Amino acid sequence: MDIATRVWNHKWKIDPIVRSLIDTDFYKLLMCQSVFRNKPDTQVTFSLINRSKSVRLAELVDEGELREQLDHIRSLSLTRGESTWLRGNTFYGKRQMFRPDFMEWFENLSLPPYHLEKRDGQYELTFEGSWPEVMLWEVPALAVLMELRSRAVLDGMKKFELQILYARAMTKLWEKVERLQQVDGLRLADFGTRRRHSFLWQDWCVQALSEGLGNKFVGTSNCLIAKNRDLEAIGTNAHELPMVYAALAETDADLARAPYQVLADWHEEHSGNLRIILPDTYGTEGFLKRAPDWLAGWTGIRIDSGDPATGAETAINWWTERGEDPRKKMVIFSDGLDVEKIAELQAQFAGRVRPSFGWGTLLTNDFRGLTMDDALAPFSVVCKAVSANGHPTVKLSDNPRKAMGPASEIDRYKRVFGVGEQEEQEVVV
Amino acid sequence: MDIATRVWNHKWKIDPIVRSLIDTDFYKLLMCQSVFRNKPDTQVTFSLINRSKSVRLAELVDEGELREQLDHIRSLSLTRGESTWLRGNTFYGKRQMFRPDFMEWFENLSLPPYHLEKRDGQYELTFEGSWPEVMLWEVPALAVLMELRSRAVLDGMKKFELQILYARAMTKLWEKVERLQQVDGLRLADFGTRRRHSFLWQDWCVQALSEGLGNKFVGTSNCLIAKNRDLEAIGTNAHELPMVYAALAETDADLARAPYQVLADWHEEHSGNLRIILPDTYGTEGFLKRAPDWLAGWTGIRIDSGDPATGAETAINWWTERGEDPRKKMVIFSDGLDVEKIAELQAQFAGRVRPSFGWGTLLTNDFRGLTMDDALAPFSVVCKAVSANGHPTVKLSDNPRKAMGPASEIDRYKRVFGVGEQEEQEVVV
Repeated sequence: MDIATRVWNHKWKIDPIVRSLIDTDFYKLLMCQSVFRNKPDTQVTFSLINRSKSVRLAELVDEGELREQLDHIRSLSLTRGESTWLRGNTFYGKRQMFRPDFMEWFENLSLPPYHLEKRDGQYELTFEGSWPEVMLWEVPALAVLMELRSRAVLDGMKKFELQILYARAMTKLWEKVERLQQVDGLRLADFGTRRRHSFLWQDWCVQALSEGLGNKFVGTSNCLIAKNRDLEAIGTNAHELPMVYAALAETDADLARAPYQVLADWHEEHSGNLRIILPDTYGTEGFLKRAPDWLAGWTGIRIDSGDPATGAETAINWWTERGEDPRKKMVIFSDGLDVEKIAELQAQFAGRVRPSFGWGTLLTNDFRGLTMDDALAPFSVVCKAVSANGHPTVKLSDNPRKAMGPASEIDRYKRVFGVGEQEEQEVVV
Repeated sequence: MDIATRVWNHKWKIDPIVRSLIDTDFYKLLMCQSVFRNKPDTQVTFSLINRSKSVRLAELVDEGELREQLDHIRSLSLTRGESTWLRGNTFYGKRQMFRPDFMEWFENLSLPPYHLEKRDGQYELTFEGSWPEVMLWEVPALAVLMELRSRAVLDGMKKFELQILYARAMTKLWEKVERLQQVDGLRLADFGTRRRHSFLWQDWCVQALSEGLGNKFVGTSNCLIAKNRDLEAIGTNAHELPMVYAALAETDADLARAPYQVLADWHEEHSGNLRIILPDTYGTEGFLKRAPDWLAGWTGIRIDSGDPATGAETAINWWTERGEDPRKKMVIFSDGLDVEKIAELQAQFAGRVRPSFGWGTLLTNDFRGLTMDDALAPFSVVCKAVSANGHPTVKLSDNPRKAMGPASEIDRYKRVFGVGEQEEQEVVV
C-alpha cells in the first residue's frame, strides 16, 4: 500500500472525468483550426439532446456532480506536453498540421461558460459563444454525462460485483477482437470517445484492439489516448461544418452552395486521407448529384447514417459516373457499428472500394446484458450546434429519425436540397 | 507506484508458491494429530504419481525451480499468528481442537527432506520419514507442482493475454456461481487446494463463492485462507489412514479389521460433523456390510469414487437396514464435481439425506478451453502413502482406475475385502 498515493487521491474534491483538453476527438481540433481561420467570429449555440428519453438523466445524475465535472473542464488548459505533441507530432503523414497562430490561441484557451437546467427528468445543457471555443465543449460534455451515468449505476455495486462486471466486459470485448482477427484486410479505428463507458475503459479498449488486431487497428480518434499510447490520431470532419455554414446562408441559393463551400475551404487546407466527404447532412443522393467534379477527386467518403451498404453503393455509382475508379476510394463506415456488421460490410465491399471502419459506442460502451435490467446499456445522447448567428441549424441525414431543427426549416432544407422519401433506420447508439 | 513494495518484491530470489505450513487442507492437520497420538513412530513413504501421463511434467517444469520451491517449504515453520489461530479458533463448533502437546510439536516442526529424480519425462518425488511429518508434504507438494506448471504456461504469455485469461476465468467461475445460486438448500465447501491453478486464484475463487453464495457456502478446506478470510475450515479424514493402518496389519484377519480400527480411533477423538465415514478405500459395499453397528450411528459418509448416486443409494440402504433415519445423515460428495453434477445430485438426494459438496479441481483450476491447445487444463496428480514400515500400501476404491499398489497385494486385498467386479469411471481430475 502506497500511503502517499492514497492520500493524494483523497485530496481530490472530485474524481475528474475529463482531465485534459485533448481528451477529445482529433477531428474537433482539425475543424476548430478550420473554423478559427475561416469563421472565427461566428456566434453559435450548442445543445445537449438525449435521444433516449427513457434514460432520465436528471434523475440518475446528481446536478452538483455534473456541475463539478463541467467546472473542472473549464479549469483545464493545454499542458506543455500536450502542446508539444500537437505542434511536433506527425498527423496523417504531415508535420505542423496545427499552425502556430492556432496553437497560440489554443494554448491560451479556457472553455466558455455553460448553462444547465433540469426539465422533465432531463438536463438542458447549452453552450453559447464564438464557434471555435464552443465547439470544443461537445465531446467532453458528452463524455462527462455518459460517465456520470455509469458511475451512478456502479455506485450501487459491491467491490466483487465490480470485478465480475469488468471481467465480463473484458471477455466480451476480447471475443469481438477475436472475431475481427478473422476479417481479412480490416482497417479499423476507435471512434468511441463521446459515448464511452468511462475514460479508463476506453483506454483499455484501445489497448485491447492494439494488442489483438495489430495493424488491422489503425488508431484512435482520442488525442490524449493517441498521445499516451503512441498511436495514430484519426478523424477528418463532421456535420457541424455544413450545418453552421448552411445556417449562415442568406438566400436559398447560398444555402444550396453551403455544403460545397465547407469542402472547398477544407480542400485548400488538406490533402490525401483527410479529403473525406461527409455527404449525408442534407441527403447523400442530392449532395453527390450536384457536387462539383473536383469533389469526385477526393480520397473517399464517410457513411454516417442510412443503410450503410446503400450509401456505399451510391458512392460507387457516383464515382463511376464521374470517371473515378472506386477501387482506389476509401469508404469509412462509422454509424452504429458492431462486429458482425463490420465483417459483413468488409466482405461486401473489400476489393470494390477500400473499406475502413470507425467503431464507436459498441466498442467503448457495450455493457449491454452485463447488469440487472441493463442499467449500463449505452444510450443515444448528442451535443449539436443548434444555432449560428441567431439562425437555427438543420440536419436531415439519410435517416429521418436523426433529423434536427425547426419543422419549417426542415421543410425548406428538404426543398432546397431536393430530399424526397427517406427510409427510417433504428438509432442504436 | 510504491517503490518500496516493488523493491521488496524484487528481493525475493523466488516467488514462493507455498508461504505457510497451514496453506494445506484442514483434514491433514486433524489426521496429523490423530497419527501423532496413535501411530507416531510409523515410518512411511509418500510418492507423487501423475495419472495424466500425457502431461510431461519434467519437460514443462524446471527442476531447479521445483527444488527451490520445495526447499522453501522446508524452511517454513508455524508463525505465531498461525499457532494462535490453531490453538484459539473454534473448529466444527469445538474449542481447542488441537491439543497442547500436538501444537507444541507442530510449532517446532520443519518438513523432512525430499527425494527428486526425473524419469521418462516425469518427476519421481518421494518423501520418507515418520508418518506425522511426511504426511504434511502431500498438499504443498501437489500445489507446488500444479502452480509451477501454470507458471510455465503463463510465462509465454504477454501482459494483455494474461489480463484476458483471468477475465475469462473469472467470468467462467462467476457463471458457475450464478448456476449454483439457483440450487435450493445447497451446502458447498472449497476442497480445491491441492490441484489449484495457483494460491492467488484459489483465494479469489473462495471469495467469489463467499460473496456469491452467502450461507450456501460453508467454508474452505484451506486453513490459511480460512484464517485470512475468516471462514470455516472444513474437512474430516482421508484414505491415508486406512491405507497405512492396513499396510501395518500382520495377518489377513488384522487387515480385515484395520479400516474399522481407524474409525474406532477417530470415534474416540471426534464427534458430530467430524464423524464422517470414508468407506471406499477397499470397496464401499463390503465395508458397510461388515461394519460394526456403532458406525451406523455416525453423522454421515463421504463419497469419493465410483458413481456418486450409486454410492449414496448404497449408504441409504445401509442406514435403513441398520435402523437409522437416512434423512438425518450427511452425504458429502467430493469426487470430480462440477456445477451440473452438483445440481443433479442435490435434486436427487435433498430430503432423502442431507447432501453436502466438497468442490475441488473444477472450482480452483477450471482453465479448460481458456488457452490454445488447452495448456492450462487441470491434470490428475496425486501424492500418496506407498509404504508403511516397509510394507506396500494398497487402495482399491470404487473405481478400478483409481486402484494403487502392487498387483499381488491388490489381489490379496480384493480377496480379504470381498471386492468383486467394479465399474470403471473416467478419472477427470
